[in-house]
Formats: sequence, structure tokens, C-alpha cells
Amino acid sequence: MSLEPLGIGMIGYGTVGSGVAALLRDQAELYAARVGRPIELRRVLVRNPAKAAAAGADAALVTNDPDAFFATDMDILVEVAGGKGVIGDYVRRALRDGVHMVTANKSLLAADGPELFALAREHRAAIAFEASCAGGIPCLTALQFGLMANRVQGLYGILNGTCNYILTEMTRSGKTYADALCEAQHKGYAEADPTLDVSGADAAQKLAILASLAFGVKLDEADVPTVGIDTLELEDARFGAELGYDIKLLAIAERTPGSDRVSANVQPCFIHRDQLLAQVTGPMNALSVYGHAVGHTLYYGAGAGRLPTASAVVSDVLNLAAGWYPAAFGAMALTPDRQPDARLVAPADLRSRFYLRLNALDAAGTVAQVTRVLGDRDISISAVLQHEVDANRFVPLVVTTHAAPHGAVEDATARIEALDCVEQKVRLVRIVDMP
Amino acid sequence: MSLEPLGIGMIGYGTVGSGVAALLRDQAELYAARVGRPIELRRVLVRNPAKAAAAGADAALVTNDPDAFFATDMDILVEVAGGKGVIGDYVRRALRDGVHMVTANKSLLAADGPELFALAREHRAAIAFEASCAGGIPCLTALQFGLMANRVQGLYGILNGTCNYILTEMTRSGKTYADALCEAQHKGYAEADPTLDVSGADAAQKLAILASLAFGVKLDEADVPTVGIDTLELEDARFGAELGYDIKLLAIAERTPGSDRVSANVQPCFIHRDQLLAQVTGPMNALSVYGHAVGHTLYYGAGAGRLPTASAVVSDVLNLAAGWYPAAFGAMALTPDRQPDARLVAPADLRSRFYLRLNALDAAGTVAQVTRVLGDRDISISAVLQHEVDANRFVPLVVTTHAAPHGAVEDATARIEALDCVEQKVRLVRIVDMP
Repeated sequence: MSLEPLGIGMIGYGTVGSGVAALLRDQAELYAARVGRPIELRRVLVRNPAKAAAAGADAALVTNDPDAFFATDMDILVEVAGGKGVIGDYVRRALRDGVHMVTANKSLLAADGPELFALAREHRAAIAFEASCAGGIPCLTALQFGLMANRVQGLYGILNGTCNYILTEMTRSGKTYADALCEAQHKGYAEADPTLDVSGADAAQKLAILASLAFGVKLDEADVPTVGIDTLELEDARFGAELGYDIKLLAIAERTPGSDRVSANVQPCFIHRDQLLAQVTGPMNALSVYGHAVGHTLYYGAGAGRLPTASAVVSDVLNLAAGWYPAAFGAMALTPDRQPDARLVAPADLRSRFYLRLNALDAAGTVAQVTRVLGDRDISISAVLQHEVDANRFVPLVVTTHAAPHGAVEDATARIEALDCVEQKVRLVRIVDMP
Repeated sequence: MSLEPLGIGMIGYGTVGSGVAALLRDQAELYAARVGRPIELRRVLVRNPAKAAAAGADAALVTNDPDAFFATDMDILVEVAGGKGVIGDYVRRALRDGVHMVTANKSLLAADGPELFALAREHRAAIAFEASCAGGIPCLTALQFGLMANRVQGLYGILNGTCNYILTEMTRSGKTYADALCEAQHKGYAEADPTLDVSGADAAQKLAILASLAFGVKLDEADVPTVGIDTLELEDARFGAELGYDIKLLAIAERTPGSDRVSANVQPCFIHRDQLLAQVTGPMNALSVYGHAVGHTLYYGAGAGRLPTASAVVSDVLNLAAGWYPAAFGAMALTPDRQPDARLVAPADLRSRFYLRLNALDAAGTVAQVTRVLGDRDISISAVLQHEVDANRFVPLVVTTHAAPHGAVEDATARIEALDCVEQKVRLVRIVDMP
């Protein structure tokens, strides 16, 4: 233990920040032994020091004065405040000073990652960001180091615990979306304003970061078409279950076989119940990574929460403190600042299987008319499901397709909606066959 | 790409070795870009060059002369031959020359790990060994780096694909052990002599390595009491299923709460079907890691096979080539040579739930006699299961217990076997309640 203590400055003292402070305090001896030097939390920058003190922060460390904060002798900046504007300015200021950064800020990285990584590199600083994707699950460590021998072919992630909790309650307990959301809010799994989660935007930010690393490209959240869970209907979950599928909000990034084009999407999808990913329930997260050599690997754990997220933040701190992570960041082309722009698959060209539910007149010729529309566009049918009912009424008709281009399926859907024997909108859900 | 090429010498050209050679050849450009320098396989040492050539080895590289091999200019030794005797000598020779080592050799590490790690350190070499545990799954990377902020509390692993394949066939298709083993051999999941796998010894070696890292102790395979799957009866799998459990060969290492004692065991166990680990089927592997901060995380993938194992070996090569892994190996107390001996829980003190199946006389007083034996030893009962049958015959009686010391349960078992109303041996299976 001959080395100087390592100084930490932290921005933010919310749920995650208080967890980081607790770990650094309670496990100080263990961490010093692991990295060979003591680690000291020296200053905490917050907007409201009284609030931080109420949350248990050491009053002697807390300040709301950025200049006092940046005058602190710090080797590592831990940024757990979130957001882009002024927080982004602080991050840039620290990087220009050559201070290493640990961040959980997915929105900042998904928007400005390449610029920040390049800035860090210019000033010989490193950015560690395990906590920005999937909370405590060390999936960036896996992608960047453990799977380095692989060309990644696909990522399939459950990256938002709020959505997964709501969908689990809808499918396993038959609750409506509104009831499940309300329960998630009661249990603290969803914010009072759940938009960022249920819209899929949070998962899209994480997928942009993960796909950038996995495919070695620049890809930002604007490249990720996103559909949330807020318009899902329980009826579709029920029909899917009858066909052997669970519905999940999946973040999917794939490399088109035989090309360097990639696609990235977030949307509610059906996956077969036999898939391990379908068994990930409640607020938990998981990421399936398919590598060309390793095949299917999966990483599972808590995607949010005070100590799980702090686990990722503090692990990053320790890996920086031990000196190896800055060496890896400097030596390897790990981050998107060194990569070309992603060549995206056009949304209409994305091939997948699909589930269609229509409200169709239960009369002779209806199924023939619907399937003809699909057949005319070379979309072949995998299954048809209609329950027995009294004739001559509008009833749900479910059709699943084999793989077809999304554009052709959307075109067919519009045509089906125009048929006289169909009323209301057609409900379309992607079916994901994992390799 | 200004740096000198990095030279690799490889010992062994079997299944894994041919996979390593194929990856290094086919992905040469990608790997050079990732680590900033070309990687060259310069020499391969085998016992039988003709056999290696038949398996596709470049004849110009292959030799059976150790001196010619060690005269090669190599930065990294890849050891994928396995075994201890002469292979151990080669490994020591390379380490003494300051050559970094990548190994998949679990038996060597489980027996001599601390000595080899210390030898490497003395000569400023590093040992990377991701492929030694769970094939392609980057679980050592997770334990050593991604979860570094955690005190690990427990490891629960399915670490042998042969056993998991056999148990899956027994439980999901109702096959006998003998039929399932035969099928595993046909499909290439089991060796002609399956002893190392089905006895649990292979899983015990992996657990010794994993538990050493997770708990920061010296622990070798002799510290891991091991029971294989070769004496399992289909009937127990069926009764377990009735109670909601799947049977798995689990490698379990736990730290006793509030103490620094650890236990490590390999044995067939019941786990509840709701657990993600129970859903790991066929030849796949998975490891659940419980950290004090992160909670439950799980890592899943192929635990064996040519390219999955080569994925781990070559990832280690790249992490060494990039320079960061030697830095981490040198700076951090990651490996057991720097750790104290494990303080083991005495086998009789290991607390767990248990399943007992007895052949009991279906007559008044039998259940009372059996449960009295358990009650006398403070073992409380969780469930009793007996199917309706004609009276006054010996029929299966299943009892599950709450957590109790293994020694007390074994003592009760011996006493129950001595009862007049019980014939044959009592079958005992551990029930694992994961936290």
C-alpha cells in the first residue's frame, strides 16, 4: 500500500450517487487491497446540498459551487447526475483536465459519445461507462474484452426493467397495461412520469451504445427506430401466448449476413417461450450476444437500482484505479470515436417474421381475401388462428408470417385495412426468431 | 499498425487448437485492427505431427521437438493440450522465460494454480485462463473486472455440458441415465470414457478455479466434495418435477454469512423451475454470481466445443496483445497466489434443504416414525409426498426438509434406514434455494 490515495469527485447524489458513496465508505479496505491504493471520495457536486445531506451525504464533502468542485484534487470524475446540458459541460471540463471519467449517463453517451471519447483520448483520459447500459450487468466488459475474438452478429436485449415488469404482469397475471403501470409506480420501478421508459427511448439509448461497441461503428439514438409498450393490448399478449410466445420490449441490433449493414430497433416483440430471454421476468434485464465464434451468450441481472448500478460505477472506478482500464482505452479501438459511421439497413428492408391481428368478418371468403393480399406480396403464412364464434360478426383473426421485408408487410397491412371484410386497424407485432 | 507482429506458440492441435488456428487465420485483419498489431501463429508443438496435419494444421508450423518449439520467438504461449505432467513442465519453462500464457487447462490450474501464478509473477509474465472455466462464457472477465466492486456471496454453476445434456434428456424426455449417456456420446457431447464428466470431477476443477477468484482464497479441487450424476435415478427426477423442481448437476460455492468460511460442492441438486438456472438445458453452461452490491447476475453460453472455447482462448490472446491484461495481472490481487488458504465449512455443518426418498411400508405409523427421527434432530419438514396405493406394501415416500445441517440429515438418514418400516437405502438430494 505504498501508492498515494486516489481522489474521486462525484457529480450527483441521488439514488445511484448515494449507493456509490456507501460502497466506497463500507468497502474501503477491500477496494484498497484489490487495487493497491486507497480510494477517497473527496468532493460531491450537487444542485441542492440540503437535499444531499438529507439523503445521507457527508456535509463536509458536498458543494454546489462548480469552481470549488473542480479545484479539488481528483483523479477520477464520477458522473451520476444524468442529463446533457450543464452536466455535459462539466464532463467536458474534467476531460480537458485529463481526469478519467466514470459515467452512468446513457443519454449523454448515446447523443455525444464519439465526441466525448475523442476529447478524452486527446487529453489522455479514459471514459468508463459500464453503468450506462443494463445497470449492474457487466455486459460492456463482456463485449469489449471477454468476447474480443468475435465478430458480433446480433444483440437481443431486455434493457428496461420498468417495461419488463409491466409486460410480465400483463402476461403472467392478466393485468391491463394501465393497472400494471400503476403497480410499477407503487413499487418504485416506474417514475411518476414514465414516458422515457415506456416509450422505449431509454432502451434505445442503451442499444445505441451497445451496438456501437458490438459492431465497431458510430451509431446514435436517432438511428434506432423505437416503438414503446404504451399502445400494447392485452389481447395480443393472450393470442401470442396461445401460439407459444411471450411479449417483451426487445432492443435488437443485427448485422445483415454477408454485408456490413446493421439494423437497430426497439419495439415490443414476440419471442418463443423456450428462449432463455423469454424467462427474464419482473424488473430484471438481460442481453443476448451472438458472436461468430462463441455463438449465443447471455448476461442477466438487475438493470437499475441503487446498489446494482453503484456496483457497475464502482467497478469502473476500481478498474481505472488499477491502471489497466486506461491502458486498454488508450491501446484498443474500443469506442466509436475510432469507428466509421454505421451503414444502416433501410427500415422497409428489415426482414422479420410478423404477427397480424385483424378484426375480420367471420364469413366465407374472408381468410382467402386476407391471405391473397399477403401472397401477392410474396409474404408466406406460418399460422392462422381464429376461435370458433357465431358467424357473420367481426372477430379477431390472427395471422403469423414467415420472414418478409417490413416494407412489404406494412404495405400489405394497409391494403388489408382497406378490405370491406376488415374493420379497425391491423395490429402488427414483430416475431423474433433468435438464431 | 506501426508495432511489431506478436508471436504465438501453441501446444496442442486438437479440437480447441484447430479452432484457435482457424480464428487467428480467418480474422487476422480484424484482430490486428483491434489490438494495433498483427498476431502470428509461429509454431505448434504436438506429439504426433501427422495427426495435426490431418486435422488441418499448417505443416510448416508443426513440430514434435520441444527444443525447436521453445527456440521460436514467441510472446505468448497458448496451451490447449491439457493434462499435467509434461505439459506442466512446458508451461513452467515458458513462464520462466517471461512468456505470457493462455491456457484452457483446468486440471493444471485447479491443482497447481497458486504455484504457477506466483512463478508467472516472478518472471513478469501473465496467465490468462478464461477458457479453463465454462468454455466461451466470459465469466472470469466478469468476476475479475466487471464485478470488482462486489464481495461475492455465492456461485451456482452448471459447468459441465455433458451432465446437463444427460439430465435434460432424463427430465424432459423421460430417458434413463444409460440411454441419455449413450445419446450424448453419439452426438459428441460425451467422451467414450465419460468418467471425468459424469463423476463431477470436471465441474469440481472449474469450481475450484472460480471460487478461488470469487472469494479471494486458495482453494483446490481436493477442497470440493463431489458427487456425480452416474447414480441418479429417474424416479427422483420425476418426484422432484412433481414438487416443482428440476434436477441439475450444480457446482456451488458459498460464503457463510457473517464469517469468512466458504464451502464448495458439486452434486446433483434440485432447483425450483422458476429459477433461470433451471431453464439452462442441453449442453449449455451457466453461472449465477451473487454479489453483495449487484445481487444476482447470470452468465450463459456454450461451455465447450471448438469455436466457443477458441473464442475464450483468442480473446485472452488479444487482451494480452493489447497490453492491458498483463498490467491488470501485475497490479491487482486477482489470483490465488496472493490470497490466504480457504477456511472451509466442515461438510457436516453445511446447511441446506434436502429431499429424502424412502421405500416405506404403507401402514399406520410409518410417517410418524420417519418424521420423529427427523424431529428428534431438529430437522423440520417442508413437504411430504406419497401416492395412493394398496396398503401394506413398500412404496416410495418423499419428504423434503427446511434448511438443516448436512451432518444431522445424514445421521437421520442412517437412523431411518434402520427402521423396520423402511427397506433399501434412503435417496438424498440437496435442494438449493438460491437467494
